[in-house]
Parts: sequence; C-alpha cells; structure tokens
Amino acid sequence: MTTNNTQSDVGTMTGEHLDLAHRLATQLRVDSIRCSTQAGSGHPTSSLSAADLMAVLLLRHLRYDWANAHQATNDHLIFSKGHASPLLYSMYRAVGVVGEDELVNTYRQFGSRLEGHPMPILPWVDVATGSLGQGLPDAVGVCLAGKYLDKLPYHAWVLCGDSELAEGSIWEAIDKAAYYKLGNLTAIVDVNRLGQNGPTELQWEMEKYAKRVEAFGARALVIDGHNLAAIDAALSEARSNPEQPTVVLARTIKAKGVPEIEDKNGWHGKALPKDMAERAIAALGGVTDLTITTATPDAGAPAIQADPSATVTLPVWDIGEKVATRAAFGAAISALAVRPKVVVLDGEVGNSTHAGEFKDVCPERFFEMFISEQQLIASAVGLSVRGYIPFASSFAAFLIARPYDFIRMAGVSEANIRLVGTHAGVEIGQDGPSQMALEDIAAMRAIHTSVVLYPSDAPSTAALVATMADTDGVVYLRATRGAYPVIYGPEEEFPIGGCKIHRAEPNDQVALIGAGVTLHECLAAAEELAEAGIPARVIDLYSIKPLDRDTLIDTCRITNSRLVVVEDHYPQGGIGGAVMEALADADIGQLHVTLLGVKGLPVSGQPAELLDAAGISARHIVAAARKLVEAQA
Amino acid sequence: MTTNNTQSDVGTMTGEHLDLAHRLATQLRVDSIRCSTQAGSGHPTSSLSAADLMAVLLLRHLRYDWANAHQATNDHLIFSKGHASPLLYSMYRAVGVVGEDELVNTYRQFGSRLEGHPMPILPWVDVATGSLGQGLPDAVGVCLAGKYLDKLPYHAWVLCGDSELAEGSIWEAIDKAAYYKLGNLTAIVDVNRLGQNGPTELQWEMEKYAKRVEAFGARALVIDGHNLAAIDAALSEARSNPEQPTVVLARTIKAKGVPEIEDKNGWHGKALPKDMAERAIAALGGVTDLTITTATPDAGAPAIQADPSATVTLPVWDIGEKVATRAAFGAAISALAVRPKVVVLDGEVGNSTHAGEFKDVCPERFFEMFISEQQLIASAVGLSVRGYIPFASSFAAFLIARPYDFIRMAGVSEANIRLVGTHAGVEIGQDGPSQMALEDIAAMRAIHTSVVLYPSDAPSTAALVATMADTDGVVYLRATRGAYPVIYGPEEEFPIGGCKIHRAEPNDQVALIGAGVTLHECLAAAEELAEAGIPARVIDLYSIKPLDRDTLIDTCRITNSRLVVVEDHYPQGGIGGAVMEALADADIGQLHVTLLGVKGLPVSGQPAELLDAAGISARHIVAAARKLVEAQA
Repeated sequence: MTTNNTQSDVGTMTGEHLDLAHRLATQLRVDSIRCSTQAGSGHPTSSLSAADLMAVLLLRHLRYDWANAHQATNDHLIFSKGHASPLLYSMYRAVGVVGEDELVNTYRQFGSRLEGHPMPILPWVDVATGSLGQGLPDAVGVCLAGKYLDKLPYHAWVLCGDSELAEGSIWEAIDKAAYYKLGNLTAIVDVNRLGQNGPTELQWEMEKYAKRVEAFGARALVIDGHNLAAIDAALSEARSNPEQPTVVLARTIKAKGVPEIEDKNGWHGKALPKDMAERAIAALGGVTDLTITTATPDAGAPAIQADPSATVTLPVWDIGEKVATRAAFGAAISALAVRPKVVVLDGEVGNSTHAGEFKDVCPERFFEMFISEQQLIASAVGLSVRGYIPFASSFAAFLIARPYDFIRMAGVSEANIRLVGTHAGVEIGQDGPSQMALEDIAAMRAIHTSVVLYPSDAPSTAALVATMADTDGVVYLRATRGAYPVIYGPEEEFPIGGCKIHRAEPNDQVALIGAGVTLHECLAAAEELAEAGIPARVIDLYSIKPLDRDTLIDTCRITNSRLVVVEDHYPQGGIGGAVMEALADADIGQLHVTLLGVKGLPVSGQPAELLDAAGISARHIVAAARKLVEAQA
Repeated sequence: MTTNNTQSDVGTMTGEHLDLAHRLATQLRVDSIRCSTQAGSGHPTSSLSAADLMAVLLLRHLRYDWANAHQATNDHLIFSKGHASPLLYSMYRAVGVVGEDELVNTYRQFGSRLEGHPMPILPWVDVATGSLGQGLPDAVGVCLAGKYLDKLPYHAWVLCGDSELAEGSIWEAIDKAAYYKLGNLTAIVDVNRLGQNGPTELQWEMEKYAKRVEAFGARALVIDGHNLAAIDAALSEARSNPEQPTVVLARTIKAKGVPEIEDKNGWHGKALPKDMAERAIAALGGVTDLTITTATPDAGAPAIQADPSATVTLPVWDIGEKVATRAAFGAAISALAVRPKVVVLDGEVGNSTHAGEFKDVCPERFFEMFISEQQLIASAVGLSVRGYIPFASSFAAFLIARPYDFIRMAGVSEANIRLVGTHAGVEIGQDGPSQMALEDIAAMRAIHTSVVLYPSDAPSTAALVATMADTDGVVYLRATRGAYPVIYGPEEEFPIGGCKIHRAEPNDQVALIGAGVTLHECLAAAEELAEAGIPARVIDLYSIKPLDRDTLIDTCRITNSRLVVVEDHYPQGGIGGAVMEALADADIGQLHVTLLGVKGLPVSGQPAELLDAAGISARHIVAAARKLVEAQA
C-alpha cells in the first residue's frame, strides 16, 4: 500500500492520518525486532521507544527524495543514537529503499551495508554514528551550511538518546545552534529513561531537560513520545521557527510495544530471543508491508557553487626571510578564499593561528566556534557532508587531543576535513607543556584516511595548505609558532607523500631527517657535521603520512642505513615511528637509526632552550650522527 | 605587615577588612604586572580581572596551612583558567611561600617552578591546567573524595574563565557536581567578557550564565567581581550549602586597575610594555610588601587509610577455560576492593566492562559518571590528587579517544590514574567500527608517564590489574570483548616491561609477536607453521610500554631478525611501531619484519570474520611468516 503526505495538513493530524502513522509505527517496531532477532544482536528496545517519533517524522515532516539521495534540498536525518539502527533501517524499508530480505537477513552480517551502527556507505546516512553525542554536533555543521552557505530550506532532524545528553558535546552543539540561530535544526530526544547500565541520570525529569535546553538557547518542546498527534504538532512547530533550534523532549518507554520488557532494565543492546520476538510480533499484528512516500522537497541549488576557474594566487616570500608557518597558513588560507567552497572554522584563537585572516577577506565563510573544539570538528564534518571544504584550526594540542573522538569518527565516516594545528611542540616556549602538542602526530597517524603534514617553512606551508583543499580524508597540517627562515623558492612543489632532500652528496655518511622546526635544526647540524668532515644529507619529511618510503630506502643505501630522525614530539608513534615502520622489511642491511624525540616533561623557557633540553637541537643531532658514524669507522 | 583572618567574621566584611582586601588585591595586581612584564609574556589582564576575587578568597575564605601543603584538611585552590598564573603566583608571594625575587625574576624562565601555566611541581598546585575546561572537572574528583571518601570538610575553590564555559566539559562537571551534591565545591567564574580573540559568546550576559548553571543543578550567585563585600558575601554563602555546588558568576573587567587597557580587546596573553607597566604600578600605589596569613584548617585525617595488611586474593581460572579479559578485569578489580584506596569509576557501561562487579562488593567506592568520559577521567585525576587509586573504565574507543586531552593533561600533571578500556579492536564484531578502538595504543603510547598493557588471557589480566594499582603514571590496560582460552597458570608473574615467550626452540626461524586477541592468532599460526616444518616462537607482548627490548633483540638473534608483529589496531604507532622503535639501533643485522595491522575501515561481522578481513588472523600470520622464511631460504 502506498500513501502520500502533503505539507498542507501538517500539524492537524486527523483520524485517517493517525491510523496510518500508527500502522507505520507498528511496522517499524515489528521490523526492528525482526532484523535484530535474526542478527542475534542489536538494540531493539532503543528502537521501539522511538518508533512513534520516527513514524510521524517520516510520514508528515521529512522532505526527502529517496530516489535521489543527493538532491540538494533533501532534509537530513541523523541518528545521533546510532544504536537505534534497526529503527533507521526499518524506516528505509518503509520508504522502499531497503528490501525485506536485506533488512531481515543481512543486518549486522559481514558484507552487509546495514551495519551495527549507521555508516555512510548507505547513501541516506550523512555521518557514521555510534559514539554518542556526535550526531547532533555534526548536524550543527549541516545546518550552518543550510542557513549561511547553501541558503536552502532543508531541515536537519536528529534523533538523540537521553543517555547522550550527559556528553558535554551535546551542550556545545545546542549552544552553537542557538548562537547561530539554526532554526533549521531539530533534535528529537528519545527520553526512554534507561541507559545501557540502568536508569539515566535524569530519568524522566522532563522539566530539568527542558530547563537545560532553554538555558542553552534552544526551544524545548516536551511531549509524550507515544502520542502521535502530539508528536506531529511538535514537529510542525519545530519547523516553523526560522531563528531558533528546537529540541523535542519526548517522554518514551523503552521497548514500547513489547509489554513483557517495557521499561525494564537489562534489555539494552540485547536482541529479543526468538520465542519472545515471535510473541511480540504476533501481538503487534504480524509482519506488514506498508510502503509510504514521503514529501519531496522543491528542487533547488545551493547558493554557493564550486568555481573551477578560480585561481589561487599563493603568497610568496624571499629565501631567508623569517616567517612562522602559522603565518604562512593564514596567508595561504586567505588566498584560498577565492575558492567558493572553502570554509574556515576557528576555536577562538584565530589571532594566534592566523585563521582569523580569512575572516578579514571572507567573513561570510568564517565561523567562530569559540572554545569548544569538539563542536569545531563536528561543524567541519557537517560542512563536509554538504560538500564544503572546511579548514578547522586551533592550537595543535587542543585541536587534536580535545576532540580526538570526533576526529576518529570523521575517519570512520570517511569525511573530508582539513585540520591545521599551530603552536606544536616544545618550540612554543614559555607557555609550558599544557600548550605543547607532543602526541598529535602519533594520534593523527592512527586515524583512518588521515594525511599528516608538517612543513618547515612558509612556501611549503602555503603550497600544502592549497593542496589540502583538494585532498580527501582527514588531512592534518602541523604548524609552528616561531618564525624560521624561508628555504624554498616559490616554484618548488610539495606533493603529498613526497619529501625534500638537502645537501645530498654521493658520499653522505648519515642522513638527518626532520620536519617542521627540527628541519632547521637538522640543517644546522649538517653544516656543523660538514665542517667536521662528516658529509650528511638532510631530509625534509614534510609528508609524514603518506611517507616517501622509496626515498628513505634510497637514502639508507647511500648512508649505510645511518639515520638520525628528530622530532618535536614524544618519541612514541611520531615521525621516528613512521620512519621505522616504513623500513620494517626494507632490504637495506642493518639499520643504524637514532630516534630523537622529546625527553620527559618539558617546562617553560625560550624555544631554543627547550629544544635543547628536550634533546632535539642541532647539538644533539650532531652528537647522534657522530656516534653512528664513529661506531662503524 | 601580617594580619590574620578568622572564620567568625566571614561574610560581614567591615571597613578595616575591606581596606586590607583592597590593599591585597592591589598588590596582587602590581605583582601580576611585574612578573609578566619582566618575563615579557603571560596573561596579566586575565589576572587583573580576578584579583579582587582572589584577594577576598585568600584573606577570608581559603583555609590552608601554607607550611604544610600536604595537610589533609587543607582547602584546594585550582586555577582552571591556568593562564592567570601571574595572579596565582602573586597570591603565593602574599602568603609568603614564594619570594619577591622568585616571582619577579623567574616567572616563565627556564628552570623556574613558576611556569607559564601552573604545574604540580609547586606543592600547592594539585593539577596542571592550561587546557581550558579541565580544572573544574578535576575539582569534582577532589570533592568526590572529600565528601564520600575522606569525609573531611575541605572545600575546593576553582577559578574559571568565562571563555572556558564554552567547553562541554564544564557542563559535564557542573552536572556531576550537582548529581553528587558536592556542596564542597565552588567555582568562581571571572566573567571579564573578553576572550583571546575578542568578545566571548555571552559577554556579560550574567543571567544567561546563571540560568545555565541553575539548570545543571548548581547554585548560581551573580556578583560584581570588583565589589569586595559582595565577593565576601558570595564566598561565605558558597561554603554554607553542604548539599549543592555553587558557581559564583562574577562580572569583572579585563585588565581592571590599568585604565588605559581596561575592557580593551587585543590585550589577551600580552605582557604590558615596560613603560605602561611602570605607569600602571605607580598609579596603583607602587610595589608593596603585604604578607597575610590565611586561616588554617582544623587538623583531621581522611576516613580512609591505606591498609598495608590487606591481602588481595586474585581469582583463578583453569588452563583452557574460555574467559574474556574484560571479565577477568571485573573479577580482579572486585578482588582489589579489599585495598581501601582503590576506587572505580564507570562511564555507564559497567555491565559490559565488568567494572560494575566492583560496585556489587564495594558500592561506597564506585562512582557512576554516566556517558561523560571527559568527567570520567577528570574525576580519576581529582581522586588521585587525594591519594586514591582510581580505575576508570569504559569501552576503549570512548575511554581513550573521547577524553584524550584529559589523559594528555593527566600526563602533564604526572597524576596517577588507571584506565581499563574494554571492547578494543575489530574483535568486537557486529557493533561495527564506531565502537572499535583502533588508535588507542598509538594515542596512549605518546602520553607522558604512560604505561600500556594488553593481556591476552584472564590470569595475566588479573595479575596486571593488581600490579596497576601499585604503578605510577597514566596506566592503561586494553581488554578484549570475546572469551579466549586461559593460557597461563595462576603462579605466572607478569612484571610491567616484561613479555612471555611461547614455543621457543633454538632453531626457530621466525617469531610471531602479538598481544591480546592476536596472541591467540599467533599461537594458532605457530601451530600451523610447525606442521609445515617452520619452527616459530610466539611472544606475548602484554607490556607494550615499557617494552622488553632485550628479549626482542635476543629473539632477533635467534630468528635472523624475522618477526611478524600483529595487532588488532591500525598499523600506525601501535605494537608494530613500538617494536620497530625499539629495534632502531639494535645490532641485529638486517630486519625482516612484517607488520600486520588492521587494513582499511572494518565493518560489522563476526569477530573471526573481521580478524581475517583485517588481515590479522592466523592465516595471514602464517602467510607472512612463510614469506619471510622463504625469502631467505
């Protein structure tokens, strides 16, 4: 059976519509039970509580052309409570894009696109969810795009769980949604009172939730999440307010529709046993085959389109000029403003990272996220969903470590985001170790799809920033606080996966490998070694992941595998780790590699003092190189 | 001049007291300017705004025996806005524990304990701050200890900035403080309207802040932060409410006391130029030498004392029995409950991690943090400040990635916390990649003071959990979801930094190195290789950091440096990286090392399917080992 909703009667649900919504909700329940019981795992009870909410949303509010998931005006539906995937996939069956067999027989099976938690392999899924408290923040990015960039009337509907409202990231999201007046965002919170491990913190204290939501600037609508008319009225109201996000707080019952386990603890993340499932399905009226057609949005195109003719003119610098790579980032990102899809996000440090320079030339594509780095990354992910090219930046320590789970999930989503972390390493000096990223390279290398770049001078930084815009994945560029000499001319190219060799001679006895600030220390060390009669080449490993393995191997062949790798980072998992992993099975004889990373806990001081105390200054490189050469003399 | 405050007149500040407070505040301002101008860096304007608040706190409310920083009944003073360190250090001068010369001439200098942001090298500093939004969460842990464990009347006073209220972690903290009725906690928010980069999101909208604070369950007191009597009254009230935390929202003026830059943007993180500093100091009345004595707390001892006689009886299992290491963690941590200082913290997954079993035997030392992993770690840090032995646990993906900046700062604080992350790797199966920790080892190895453990069976897990309790640092144990055979007897010892060798023969041609679930794959592979006539030893690298380098080198000498390292983790920075870093300069000939880590983005499926698809199952290990052996045959 096929039916249709029209926009005219939204919010005035009559008997016929109520009946249809009830039948749809019942089918969603039956299907949620069926697929999870068949899989032997999953979260049916968390699906059952939200079935009425989603039935009404699907029938009467979601505007979506299922035949064309890439229609620019489609609404967005994000399950922030990703574990309710049985419900989401049952909705897909109800609109006809997932078949009976796929739903019931492949859910959570190896090779199926109906994974345990929603994944963007499905064309209707924007972002991977399953790490709680991320779907709503991601939707804020989608809605920033909708309101300020695309200027299209699509709406983002986000199904949240009540447990995830304990995550601070949810409040960062509601706060930013209100600050940016995202009337195109509605969170629907399925307050089913029970978490995985027992009652949630606030259980059914709906007024407390409402107070919080309102205090953070959103509109709160408290409803009975099983009253179809009330749901309909709330969702109508949600879409009617262009200047304020709405949070529908729906009081629901976990496992609603299966009386024997309704509101019972101990049924989270558990499929119903087969006999219980059969009883429940029978009591619900059995398997049905209702297919519905949702409203489709009017056609429309984003206000911003890519401009293939846009020519980026990167800034140029003179060789020897002292420029901080963070300043080069600011200059380069400003030059990229001619590309209409480039967007810059700041964590309230744009004056230090130089990201703020983009705002000066292109305020309409600059978003201040204040000191909420989780939302900073989530906004970038949401913007990437809409096809923008987001650059998020902050100090490296805060940019990578604070929202690391959001970065991890960006990798799982295979989202395309660009991160620029400045003020990395002990080089920052007097501010001390709380501000020093010393683990960011290790953390970022282990992210799926990641690219890790760490240029040493202004032209290489500018070139890589420009390249990042066209590079897929979670692309991270690490920048330095202090000013160091320009070493490359404006024509030099810096492909991702490449490196640069300095001072190469056929008789080089050792190679010094650095990136960023340590490249300058390596160059100074090579100078000193040359004076002492030890020819040493220097490798600028500006691309840490991917890494130029072939050049490393060639280098080893020349230097008898004598390498000194030096990094302003802890010695675990960073540049040294990357080099060693690359050489694990290389046919280059015995390795004579010295890894120099930051020793112990740094303190405050001048950059040069700290580089030296950390054991990564030119002096230490010289000593390490000498030792390698002398050991085999 | 020395004076004294008494508790009796708290909140009834008279003319004489007002005068003294004013003079103290003025001295704190002068000293904050002096030290930062001398250093040429720092945040004087962020110190000036809070000088009145801290003067009144110090004179009339803080109970602290400065001669005995380890007095158990001392209040705690935490600068969550760590950049106001000039103010903190000026307070230390005012109470006589930091001298004139140290303050003015060493601040931010290399070798000084007066670092850019407060560090626990100072005996009065509990935790390193400087990553915003962490001091208040840490204080929640301190106050949990005070109210529920120590049962002592000390109070924690936390100076927060207004910018950091944009961090979700602040709201996790206020929420948990209210949930646990922490009347012993007062946050004093210095609402000076200006962040680093311009106006804060809410500027001086005091009522909005108050609404948020109250919605999250704390008492909000809005005051003029430069009205000494009002400050005094608010702080008196703050201490008077045993069942509810207080947030004093103080409207202040950035740079207050230096009219030419008061409330002016562009002066964050900038020392006053010398001439401006001289003018300002003169206008403030010049350098003074006021020394004050704070109230000292009554003596007292924590209700919980270590019991050296407590004997931990670890559970035992039969060889071959199938037990999940997460279950062994639950059993072991429950056994550790006999040690009075052991505390367990859960992120609302205690039924899955098995941490909940501790609650069954010792509910009074179990704290549910719900789904707020940042607060989970911060609570552990705060408990460690009070000398407890906190174990925080959740799924590895959420335990490490979500609060990674808190873990980083725990390392910077050199706090002693224990983390147990379960459900690591693709082995978890059907839940899919959002739940799979595949980067946690890389991330954790790069943390200062970290220890990384990954046992493969129940007895080794139990032994390591017991050892963790006596191991300093940020100690992480990674546990597996599924049940695997017990391979060690109850007498086996598992020292940190050790490993176990299986199937060693003098003619071994290759070594298979695994940990956790891959150890079992390695054992199966070795069996198969033996049948094919290739003797292979297996190394259980249960201690990934520190790592048993000597045994690795010995192994290489036997196997002609043929190693297969296999891990349920991305191939960057994990176990393979650790092994390769350790062998960088080892005198063991050419390496023939194959690193097997998880390839690409995993999907949902059965554990065995996923291990195989990831390229880390026995089959892949056999193939890799064969290839290594055959290449040199």
